[in-house]
Amino acid sequence: MPEQPTTYEQIAYAVAGSTATVTLNRPEARNGYTVTMADEIAAALRAADEDEGIRVVVLTGAGKDFCVGADLSAGAGKGRGFSAPADEETAARVEAGTYQEPAGVVTRVLYGMNKPVIAAVRGAAVGVGSTMLLPADYRLAATDSRFGFPFSRRGIVPEGASAWFLPRLVGLGTAMDWLVSGRIFAADEALRTGLVASLHEPDAVLDAAYALAAELASRTAPVSVAVIRQMVHRMAWADSPEQMHRLDSRLVYDTVRGADAVEGVRSFFERREPRFPGRVPKDLPGYLPWRD
Amino acid sequence: MPEQPTTYEQIAYAVAGSTATVTLNRPEARNGYTVTMADEIAAALRAADEDEGIRVVVLTGAGKDFCVGADLSAGAGKGRGFSAPADEETAARVEAGTYQEPAGVVTRVLYGMNKPVIAAVRGAAVGVGSTMLLPADYRLAATDSRFGFPFSRRGIVPEGASAWFLPRLVGLGTAMDWLVSGRIFAADEALRTGLVASLHEPDAVLDAAYALAAELASRTAPVSVAVIRQMVHRMAWADSPEQMHRLDSRLVYDTVRGADAVEGVRSFFERREPRFPGRVPKDLPGYLPWRD
Amino acid sequence: MPEQPTTYEQIAYAVAGSTATVTLNRPEARNGYTVTMADEIAAALRAADEDEGIRVVVLTGAGKDFCVGADLSAGAGKGRGFSAPADEETAARVEAGTYQEPAGVVTRVLYGMNKPVIAAVRGAAVGVGSTMLLPADYRLAATDSRFGFPFSRRGIVPEGASAWFLPRLVGLGTAMDWLVSGRIFAADEALRTGLVASLHEPDAVLDAAYALAAELASRTAPVSVAVIRQMVHRMAWADSPEQMHRLDSRLVYDTVRGADAVEGVRSFFERREPRFPGRVPKDLPGYLPWRD
Repeated sequence: MPEQPTTYEQIAYAVAGSTATVTLNRPEARNGYTVTMADEIAAALRAADEDEGIRVVVLTGAGKDFCVGADLSAGAGKGRGFSAPADEETAARVEAGTYQEPAGVVTRVLYGMNKPVIAAVRGAAVGVGSTMLLPADYRLAATDSRFGFPFSRRGIVPEGASAWFLPRLVGLGTAMDWLVSGRIFAADEALRTGLVASLHEPDAVLDAAYALAAELASRTAPVSVAVIRQMVHRMAWADSPEQMHRLDSRLVYDTVRGADAVEGVRSFFERREPRFPGRVPKDLPGYLPWRD
Repeated sequence: MPEQPTTYEQIAYAVAGSTATVTLNRPEARNGYTVTMADEIAAALRAADEDEGIRVVVLTGAGKDFCVGADLSAGAGKGRGFSAPADEETAARVEAGTYQEPAGVVTRVLYGMNKPVIAAVRGAAVGVGSTMLLPADYRLAATDSRFGFPFSRRGIVPEGASAWFLPRLVGLGTAMDWLVSGRIFAADEALRTGLVASLHEPDAVLDAAYALAAELASRTAPVSVAVIRQMVHRMAWADSPEQMHRLDSRLVYDTVRGADAVEGVRSFFERREPRFPGRVPKDLPGYLPWRD
Repeated sequence: MPEQPTTYEQIAYAVAGSTATVTLNRPEARNGYTVTMADEIAAALRAADEDEGIRVVVLTGAGKDFCVGADLSAGAGKGRGFSAPADEETAARVEAGTYQEPAGVVTRVLYGMNKPVIAAVRGAAVGVGSTMLLPADYRLAATDSRFGFPFSRRGIVPEGASAWFLPRLVGLGTAMDWLVSGRIFAADEALRTGLVASLHEPDAVLDAAYALAAELASRTAPVSVAVIRQMVHRMAWADSPEQMHRLDSRLVYDTVRGADAVEGVRSFFERREPRFPGRVPKDLPGYLPWRD
């Protein structure tokens, strides 16, 4: 399998201007999540992240739902849980601690990206359909959307490191409620708790995502955004602000003298849109502690 | 003193179906907190947690108040602070770093439980009456309830690790306000900030807690809930999601093949209530990192 | 330069009763932030913190704005970014990892203080004008105030460890939005998200800060407040509550027997304002783990 497949079975990948769109594309199955879909989303996100021309990624689903969760058709009704029987290779990876369950495969790539991701959600976003959204920078939702982490109701556990992300997004009380009860909740609760940034008519949510993508692309510096995203994801959760203070001291010192800052200040005074020269990943500082 | 006293002086312990109720039972003193009460609440919570038949615990107070805080009658007016004079044994434990102040005795047990706890609060929940609630999974409150962390106004400090829990529940700004000012605040502020999950008429709050308990008991898998609760409490606060991703990968792999998942999927397709076979603690995975 | 200058060029420092006021004082430049201003704010905060007679600090700006951000007049239009050319000494400190960028100089002092800080904000609080506010205990804002972290729009990165503080104050989703987009937002969004504690008419915000300062000063114990503030800042972000439980167990044991607690209980029963004898820093417990 190539590292960056250019054709996909279960998703669609499209680029328009500086925005890439990753679309879960099994509308006939309400975008039920499969191992193939997981690998394809991850590959598409990686491709977008490595493409210098892409500034923002929009993540959405074809049809009336974002994703109804794991596709249960393989295991259901056959006396099994969710999955096909384990093969020996997978069992060996579990034993070795290197196995990644399919929701986490996408979460991990999303979390590590240098480009912001805007999720545009309609209808059901349940199970992995909810957990997949958590490392995105923005969740824009339709008024008909509904969310849920029904793992406790299926006899399993939250996937995709969702138990890590959720309390940071909505607080410990709401996270515990949603994860323990497994209940489905509606768009207005998602808005009120801060899970989603804004609500839109079902037919307008994708356009809203594109409008936001265009604004981010036209106004922000690619290098700044990449560094900011990772400052938050990788360094905001340390016990003390000391590390962040030390890193941003060096970054501020370097960036205020950089070409992007010159353009940032000049365009500000000239009241025009900036044209930042810095490109990602090639112009990222070499000393960022999260880069291997 | 037996590990699990079956009769209590200052609390009541009752079981109905799969729900245990722990009731602070000194209504004549507005459930003023004592060392005895602390030990009894902790013992009752432990008993409920070890009882396979119990699914959910409701924590409430007899009378019009949940708990007005530490009982000040022992020390007050005698030129002392809150406490009886220190005995040598206690002083030695303080010196050794093994002393647990009475609010923390309950907090610690609540935090480590495998069963969800729903607090049902009426009237005053002040001092330890507020801190005790923080590790509960749900706080349901009456419209006449009021809360407060008045430690700064009494010349002492927040107890029960409340300074750890509070910023996670309501954010750093609100936590700092409540802890620094020590002010009492009303039910609507508790709702708006996310401290409580819902408000009810005073006479309806306990029934609401039982309705929620019944829903949790009938719809969720005991093993899932126990694992979820501890995933959040023990692993959600790590600096990175990597650990959680590794643990949930293994847990997902194991649980999707388990008997609970088979029943979870089957009952979902058959549109009926699940009957999960897994029991707590006996069916908990052996490799959970927080188990000793 | 003396450690605690008593006269300042770019700020004003005034004491009335037990409240110190630090005023950014370049209204002609809308309180544009400079290296001199940073050093002066830090010095004034340190002076207030060391002064036993001061209970609360109010931080505000002269004129219609709190602070429009870094003063761009030095670098702008000269083909440079924000700053004067780097001198060799600064470059050496950057290399050694000891350089502190100017926003962080203030953040660090604010974070470590033993006295609560109430920010009173009117008009623009942008860039460092926003980041500087984050370690304050309270942010009171005028209805005409507006905030923003426009670093991504200037080609630089968030300063003052703001990427550490912000997710703790407003949650991960809102923090990511504000930091990635760099957009300016109004007072009502700041209130709704919990960034500010309350809104006031522009002419009333400073009075509201003084009223709150007076209430804190008259009702709370100095030692309690100092310990609480640092319990939250230094120990609330540990992965587990265990450390906090151990520390507050010892602190509770000690403080309930202390003179402040005696007065706290007595004044409570006598329904009068307390007169706490404890003073900061001299009466702080010697074993607080964050003291060097």
